[in-house]
Parts: sequence; C-alpha cells; structure tokens
Amino acid sequence: MPETSRVIRKQIGNFLEDFVPGQLFRHKGGKTVTEGLFTTFTEFAMTTNPLAKNARYARAYGFDGLVCPPGLVMLVAFSQTVEDVSENARANLEYVDMRFGAPVYVGDTIEVETKVLEVTGSKSNPKLGVVHVQSTARKNLGAKDEAVVLAWQRKVQVWKRDEAAELHAGKVEPDRVECALWLPPHRASVDYKSMAHLANADTYFEDFEPGTRIEHSRGRTMTSEHIHLTAILDNTSQVHCNQFMIDLDPKQYVGGELIIFGGIPFVLCLGLSCPNVGDNALGDLVYKTGRHTAPLFAGDTVFAATEILGKRDLPDRPDVGVLETRLHGHKFVRALPAPNEAPDASGARSEPQASEAPSGWKKVQIFELDREVVVKRRSHYA
Amino acid sequence: MPETSRVIRKQIGNFLEDFVPGQLFRHKGGKTVTEGLFTTFTEFAMTTNPLAKNARYARAYGFDGLVCPPGLVMLVAFSQTVEDVSENARANLEYVDMRFGAPVYVGDTIEVETKVLEVTGSKSNPKLGVVHVQSTARKNLGAKDEAVVLAWQRKVQVWKRDEAAELHAGKVEPDRVECALWLPPHRASVDYKSMAHLANADTYFEDFEPGTRIEHSRGRTMTSEHIHLTAILDNTSQVHCNQFMIDLDPKQYVGGELIIFGGIPFVLCLGLSCPNVGDNALGDLVYKTGRHTAPLFAGDTVFAATEILGKRDLPDRPDVGVLETRLHGHKFVRALPAPNEAPDASGARSEPQASEAPSGWKKVQIFELDREVVVKRRSHYA
Amino acid sequence: MPETSRVIRKQIGNFLEDFVPGQLFRHKGGKTVTEGLFTTFTEFAMTTNPLAKNARYARAYGFDGLVCPPGLVMLVAFSQTVEDVSENARANLEYVDMRFGAPVYVGDTIEVETKVLEVTGSKSNPKLGVVHVQSTARKNLGAKDEAVVLAWQRKVQVWKRDEAAELHAGKVEPDRVECALWLPPHRASVDYKSMAHLANADTYFEDFEPGTRIEHSRGRTMTSEHIHLTAILDNTSQVHCNQFMIDLDPKQYVGGELIIFGGIPFVLCLGLSCPNVGDNALGDLVYKTGRHTAPLFAGDTVFAATEILGKRDLPDRPDVGVLETRLHGHKFVRALPAPNEAPDASGARSEPQASEAPSGWKKVQIFELDREVVVKRRSHYA
Repeated sequence: MPETSRVIRKQIGNFLEDFVPGQLFRHKGGKTVTEGLFTTFTEFAMTTNPLAKNARYARAYGFDGLVCPPGLVMLVAFSQTVEDVSENARANLEYVDMRFGAPVYVGDTIEVETKVLEVTGSKSNPKLGVVHVQSTARKNLGAKDEAVVLAWQRKVQVWKRDEAAELHAGKVEPDRVECALWLPPHRASVDYKSMAHLANADTYFEDFEPGTRIEHSRGRTMTSEHIHLTAILDNTSQVHCNQFMIDLDPKQYVGGELIIFGGIPFVLCLGLSCPNVGDNALGDLVYKTGRHTAPLFAGDTVFAATEILGKRDLPDRPDVGVLETRLHGHKFVRALPAPNEAPDASGARSEPQASEAPSGWKKVQIFELDREVVVKRRSHYA
Repeated sequence: MPETSRVIRKQIGNFLEDFVPGQLFRHKGGKTVTEGLFTTFTEFAMTTNPLAKNARYARAYGFDGLVCPPGLVMLVAFSQTVEDVSENARANLEYVDMRFGAPVYVGDTIEVETKVLEVTGSKSNPKLGVVHVQSTARKNLGAKDEAVVLAWQRKVQVWKRDEAAELHAGKVEPDRVECALWLPPHRASVDYKSMAHLANADTYFEDFEPGTRIEHSRGRTMTSEHIHLTAILDNTSQVHCNQFMIDLDPKQYVGGELIIFGGIPFVLCLGLSCPNVGDNALGDLVYKTGRHTAPLFAGDTVFAATEILGKRDLPDRPDVGVLETRLHGHKFVRALPAPNEAPDASGARSEPQASEAPSGWKKVQIFELDREVVVKRRSHYA
Repeated sequence: MPETSRVIRKQIGNFLEDFVPGQLFRHKGGKTVTEGLFTTFTEFAMTTNPLAKNARYARAYGFDGLVCPPGLVMLVAFSQTVEDVSENARANLEYVDMRFGAPVYVGDTIEVETKVLEVTGSKSNPKLGVVHVQSTARKNLGAKDEAVVLAWQRKVQVWKRDEAAELHAGKVEPDRVECALWLPPHRASVDYKSMAHLANADTYFEDFEPGTRIEHSRGRTMTSEHIHLTAILDNTSQVHCNQFMIDLDPKQYVGGELIIFGGIPFVLCLGLSCPNVGDNALGDLVYKTGRHTAPLFAGDTVFAATEILGKRDLPDRPDVGVLETRLHGHKFVRALPAPNEAPDASGARSEPQASEAPSGWKKVQIFELDREVVVKRRSHYA
C-alpha cells in the first residue's frame, strides 16, 4: 500500500469568473419523485388542495393520481441547479418568469438544464457580481410523457474565487421555451359537485375581489428540521447544514447561525395561503417575480398574506379564471420596548393570526411572490 | 392595479354556538395513505407487528400488503375532523366506542364525516361547553373496495366565539354504523409456523393472564419533531405549531409552550406496547374509551404499560381470542427532593424501563385507553 | 375484572451468558423497503450517485428502478440484528468482511439471520465480554428473486446480566455464505454517454491514483433528528432515544447524553464521500473492516475523507475496476486555547471543508471503513 502523498480538497460549484454567457449546464443527478419526498413537503407546507392529498379526487379531475403542488415542483427543479449555479452565491436575488407546464406525479423523474444569460461584475464590490440564468426542468426524458414541467429565470449574486480574475461579462438572449400549464378539461360527465365539500367553499374564482388582502390564519414555527428538508432536496449549500463552518467565523454569516434555505419559506408560504387561495386552484400559471427579503432561522414562526391584484379570463376555458396575486411571507422578531411601554396585560386570548406586530415585536417581511393562479369557477364545479 | 382596501382575516373552524345537534360535517381534504406517511408513523411509534413491517408476512396472512397499524388508521381518520370539530377546542375530553373495520393499505384514500350528537353549555364557565360527535371514516369511496375503516364518538370541550351567544343545546341519537373488524381467515394451506419467528414468541393469546400488568421496557423521548408529525396528519391546530402565538401570552397556554398533539402519544403508547401485546395481533377490535390525562411537551420521555383485564373467545374464530386491556402512558417530571433526601448514589446502571418514579421524579399519567385486541392463538399459528 | 396482582417487566435482548457458539438467531420483524424509508436515508446521507436518485438512469443501466445505496442496505440489514445481538451491548467493536450481493429496490423485504461464532469473557472486566457473530440478509424469501443482499461478521462487547454466570465460551467456524455483488452487464446497445452528465465527471476509475487522500468538501450537522432516524431503522436501543434513562444517571452514559446510533455516521460518511468517490460506482463490493472510534452527539458536524489505497481489475469486467479505499469520518470539538493564543482574527472566509483542526478546535476521528468500490471506467461509459 503506497503512502498517502497527495491530498485533494475538492471544490464544488462555480465562481463568478467561471460563468460564460451562452454556456449551458446540464445538471447532475436528476430526481425521481418518491412518495417519501411527496409527503414530506406537501404536508410540511400544510397544503390543503385535495389534488395533492386525495387520489380519488385527483383522478376524478383527470389527473393520473396525486398531483405535486407547485411549490414542490419548484423546489425539486430549482434545487437541481444549486450546485452549478449558486453553491458559491451570496444571495439569490430574484426569481423571474417562472412558468409551470405539465403536472408532476409520484414516479416522475425531473432533469434540469440551465443557460447562462448574463454575467455582470459589481461596481461597488470587486469580489461580487450577478449571474442571470435561464433554467428548464423536464420530466421523463425519452418516455412518451416527456414534458417541460417548469421554466424560469433567476438572478444570483455570486462570489468571485479570485478577486483579480477577468469576468466573461456579456449577455445573450434567453431561449424561447415552450412551457404552458396543462389543465385537465372540464368534462360534463364528471360529477364535480359531489366532491365540492372536499375543498374550502369560499375559494372559487367568483369569491375573490381585487383590492383585497387576505391574512392567512395559520403560522408555522420552523425547527432544525430545515437541515433535513434541505438535504432531501439535494440542496447541499453549506450555509444551511454546516454549523461548524458557522462557528468558526459567525460574523461572516447572516445572523451567525445556519440560515434556512429560501425554498423552505417559499413552499411554506404557498401552503399557508392554500386554504384561502389555492384550495380550488387547478394549477399555478406563472410566478412573474419573487424574492427573499430577510433571512429565516430555526425558531422563527412564518406567516403569510395574499393580496388579490386582479382577475382575468383564461382563453377557451370558461370554467376557470386567472387570479393575479401577490403572496407575502413574514415573521416577527422581538423589538426593544419603549421605556414606558407596559406589556399587554389585557388577558385576552392571543390570536394565532398576526398581521400587525403586537407591542414588543417587529414585523419583518421575508418573502414576496407575484403569482398567477388558475382557479375554478363555482358556476362549473360546485 | 387597485389599492388594497379590504383586509380579510379568515377564521377557521367552528365555535360552540355553531354546532347543531343532528348536523353533518363532510370533512374537507380526504387523505391518501402514501408510503411516506406510512413509514413515518409506523416507525416513529416503534410498531413491531410484522403485518406493518414485512410485506411477505402480511401477504401470506391474507392481507393485500403492508397493513396500517391501528394507531395510524386512527390518526389519519381523526385528524380529518380537527378543523371542523376541534380547531377551537380547549381539550379533547374522551374517545368513545372507537371501532375498526376494513384494513387500510398504502394507496387507500380515507374520507370522513361527522354527525353532531349533543351540545351542552358549561355550568361553571359561560365561555365553554361540550360537543359530542360521531365520526365515520371510509376508504376508497365509489371503488369496489369501499369500506368503513373506523367509526367512533368523541367529546370535546369547545370555546364559544361570543360568550353571549345562544347555544343549539340538545341531543340526537347516534347513527347505527356498520363497522366490524375484518380478519383474514385462518387457512390450512398457509405455513404460519414457518413465519412465527418474525414475531415475539410470548405474545399469543395463551400467554396472557388477566390481572397482569405489563410494564413495557422502552421509552421514547419526544423532540420538536412533533410539529412536523402533526402537520403530516393535516392537524393544523395552532397550539401545536405556532410558537409566536404562545410567546405572545404564554400564561394562556398549558405549560407556556407548544403542546404535543394527543394523537402522537396515542400512537406512541400503542407502539411501545407492541412487542409485548401487539406482535401477534391480527387487529384492534375496539377502543371503548380513552382520554389524555396530562399534556406532553418536547423533551418528555414517554413510557407505557398494559393491564390485562380479561380474555374472551371470538365467535366462529377458534384461531384467535379477544384480549381486553387497558393501555397506560406516562412520563416523569422532576420533583423537588425532600430536604434530607440524598440523590441515588448506588452507581447501579439505571433501567430504561421505569414503572415507579425514582427519587427526585414524579410519575405523571398522560394517557389511558381501554383497548380490545384480537390476538392469534399459538395452537393455530406457531 | 380481576385485581392486577402480577407485574411483568419485559426484558429485551440477550446478555453475554445467553450466547452459545453455533446458535442461530432468525431475527424478528423483517423489513420492507418503502419509498418513505428509501428517501429518508438516501437524502439524509446526501448520496449523489444517480442510481439512487434518478429512476430513468437506473433503469437504463439495467437495474429494476432506484437502487438502495449500500449504506441503506447495510443499515436496514444490520438493524434487524440489534435486538437479539446488541440490545445489551456496551460497544460495537468491529465490522468484518461485509459483502454485498443482489441490489435492493423499493418494495423488497429484507430478513436476517445471525449465527454466533465465538463468545469470550473479558480478562479485565468480569461484567463484560465479546460476542463474534455472522449475519446474512436475504430479500424476498420464497419469491423468484430471493437473494442474499448482505453477509457480514461483527464483534460486539456485551454486558453480562449476572456477573457470576458461567459463559458458553468457545468458537465455531463461520458458514460459507454465497454473496457476490450483482453488477448490471455493460451493453453495447445502451447510450451511456448521453447520461454521463448526470454524475460527477472526475469520478471514473481512471481518475483515482493510489496514495491520494480526498478531503470531501461538505459537512453535515446532526440534530435530534437522529432519534427518529434510528427508530425508522427498528433500532430500539435505549441509549439512542430514552433521555429519561440518561438523566437518571448521566455519568453512566458516554457524554451524559443520547448517543447517536453508529449506523447514522456510517451512512452519512458514505454519502459525504459520494460526489468524489461514489458517483460512478456500480456498487460496493466489500467492507473488509470498519469501526467507530468516537461517539457522535446532536450538534456535532460530520466530515469525511477517503484515502485511495489501491486499484485492481475485476475479472471478466473490463468496463469497471475495483477501488480500494479507506473512508474516514471526523468531527471537531472545542479545545481550550493555549494561554497566549489569540483567536483567528484574519477575517478570511472560513472554509466549509475542514481537514485539519483550526485553532481552538480538536479533530476527532469518529469512523473508519476499509471499503472496496466497483467503479465504471470512462473508456466504457463516458
């Protein structure tokens, strides 16, 4: 046996100077959706749409079985791109034009590729810059149900490996990717009314009024479970799971502790909003833009609210309509009380739902998503 | 885009004044049992009966595959009723006459309905009262294996929304629900003996003697995992998962912290008892009554014991017998030592199994269930 | 109803004096691999080999579907032996000659038997001794794909129940168990190259050089999740899940807290090494020896490294080669700084990958495994 004479420290992911406009990443791994993955995330997020919970209902609607909720499709697809695109990112700046296509079922295998659209150095910080990419997720390559399930762009702030390195600055046009939401047809032969009690009765297209803000009633406290949830998604970014790295230099890291992967509040906010906005949705059409506005840590409790921005018809589909919404996620952090402010002593039962910060707390917005949802009309389904 | 001019705070669940005797709830959602759900709970509870672990064994016995243990069937069915019945409950007072029917397999979809039997205001507290309900869980509605899988009653102490509201006080008779435990026939063609080593050898019907109390040897410490376990069951009651709500007014909540959903110790006690009582059970017949007697929190370690109350034959089934038992769950909390009491300094190895409280600790009963189990006879199976 | 007059405290597992050389245990339970179990462990360990993640890829290679990674096969098989062999162990001393056979898929049912090879009393401690056993795990008994999936020996240090008891000291020869790694044939008709991007490009047989030590870049912090992970494996040893037992006499237990089941770092180290060593493996051939060298606790962060010890051809398989490796697991614990040592104030970004202990920390090896891996050659697959 030879002496060990050579030590290799494997480096993972790309740095800013590695990205070239026009370059294509065909991401490693791929991921088959198992019932373990499906249940873990659908239920973690408290999704209530019966399409994701009740196979009898999903089949009656014309799906092949339980339907992956949009947040789970997004998480699986997005996470495939992390190692190549954002393993060495400082921040995920923005989700852009995220469009859904074919439904994803248990057993489907997702594979993803990403094209680099633009590389820009930072003017203020020579160690940083922005990479703008376009990603496409397909399922079941080579099989007869091969289809695009998600197409999106995102902008990521990425570290340079070497501050002095030259960038491949520049820009290419995005590809035109066919990705249109598949919707099951409305069929006169199906007795939809007999299943209407399985979803919330006040979430049909007719029930929403632009200009309304819906404060979702439930909150969910995050725990160290986020480490496992992130690993299940193949997102191996060390800031989510390596406490030792943080302990070595806490000041270097946001909050000085493990930060929760942004995909977790993304899917959780979608789930918290589901009973009020998504219970009678047939699918999410597009997330035009979205961003994380503050970090989330174990111990924080997540709340969500939805603004109804507008409504429109969907061509050739009189049975549904498109709801234009803005989804907000927020949490509360303790604020120092003003000197003469006494704590609330009313003895009233506190409300689980919190839209405004109570005394002694500060409301912090963590997430924002412009979201268009295809919602059933009561006239056709109930 | 219009200004947001209207804010809606969605309220979930019913209050005491909303319940009307005779009223029927067809609960939302429904739930398909995935392999993720099945494994999470069967293994969390440390179930040891091979019917729930070994598909070869389960099929040889005449089941279609792995069999959901009774605790999991109960959890899935019960949780479907939470939003309508007990989202605004102060306490779940009693489980009554919970009877099992058809076996539940991975892939089955459970849907539940509940009839309100009685509404009673509290004499001592004008904000509270008791709702008595009857629930029925069916699987695979409309399919040829449609069947009742669980039927039960329960009594819940529920808050009023408005202290001054009039109640729909009154009472109706329960429906007669056909729900009898399905048991696979004993078949002479099956070599049961060749599989007998897969279950504990001292758990046949012949092995139990009325008047015995069996202290189960294992304990299990609960962690914050209970938040996720509760969400997986679609139980969204905020006292289990919203730490912010608790922090706003800790004195309002039992223990000033998140309380563990009662279904968790219910299924855990069943699991802890399984190696000694349930390993050779073909099914649970009925839980005549059951109640939670103290709250459980993250950090507590759960223990269980079973009293054998009686034994009887099952008509037309000489191969099995019915074991009448009482299942107890308990935990230990630190007690202040008496002034002159020295801590145990014997240096002896501590026992994992704890039936009596050691010095410095107090034993607290948390759960009690009158349980009848159908157990194989050694004469026919080993 | 009779008075409860008899209390039984069930004792579980065997003590040193119970083991007899030549004795055969046919272990209880058996275990069907569900998608819940598969996903929980494959992803917890951060396995990156597409055979375990991408069903399209696995099928194209000639497997029936997603392939259980070797660490999961080991965990499922090993855990079946715990109650009979090591429930009353002080330490698991050594894994010996652990050989893999047929692949394990979701849906397969594993059953295990163990032969006692040798019982030896300790010369220094009359309460202890060593049991040497041989275990064999088979899948799908009685079905046409029945096969041995894992065969191994191990040495365990076991407590005596009664210090004065006579031992069945002695030794028998191990059985000869047929257990050879099944490998899918290399088929000219398969377009392997079209899938090569799904695995790391620098992990073909040609890429490894004996004498190299590869420091794997990722670390993973353990949480109290280990309690649940251990229960999912049917390992019910109380030192992993019963905090009350520990609290009663913390000094009796290593570290005075719940110790993490050794199988957890075993599978985690395999996973952490996967991107650099296992991505293009078709299977693990044998673990010649392995041992746990220090305990692991919640809060510790696990790292891994692999030494490449040697390379050899596999007879009749020019498309692959055998990589002889030693897998190391380690963690860092805080060390008291030397009096005049200042903390690192360089402000440099800390590295997630840590092979040498930074100032103020001590490196502790926790695991060591001599591991032979069958790795694809680039010449045939990419």
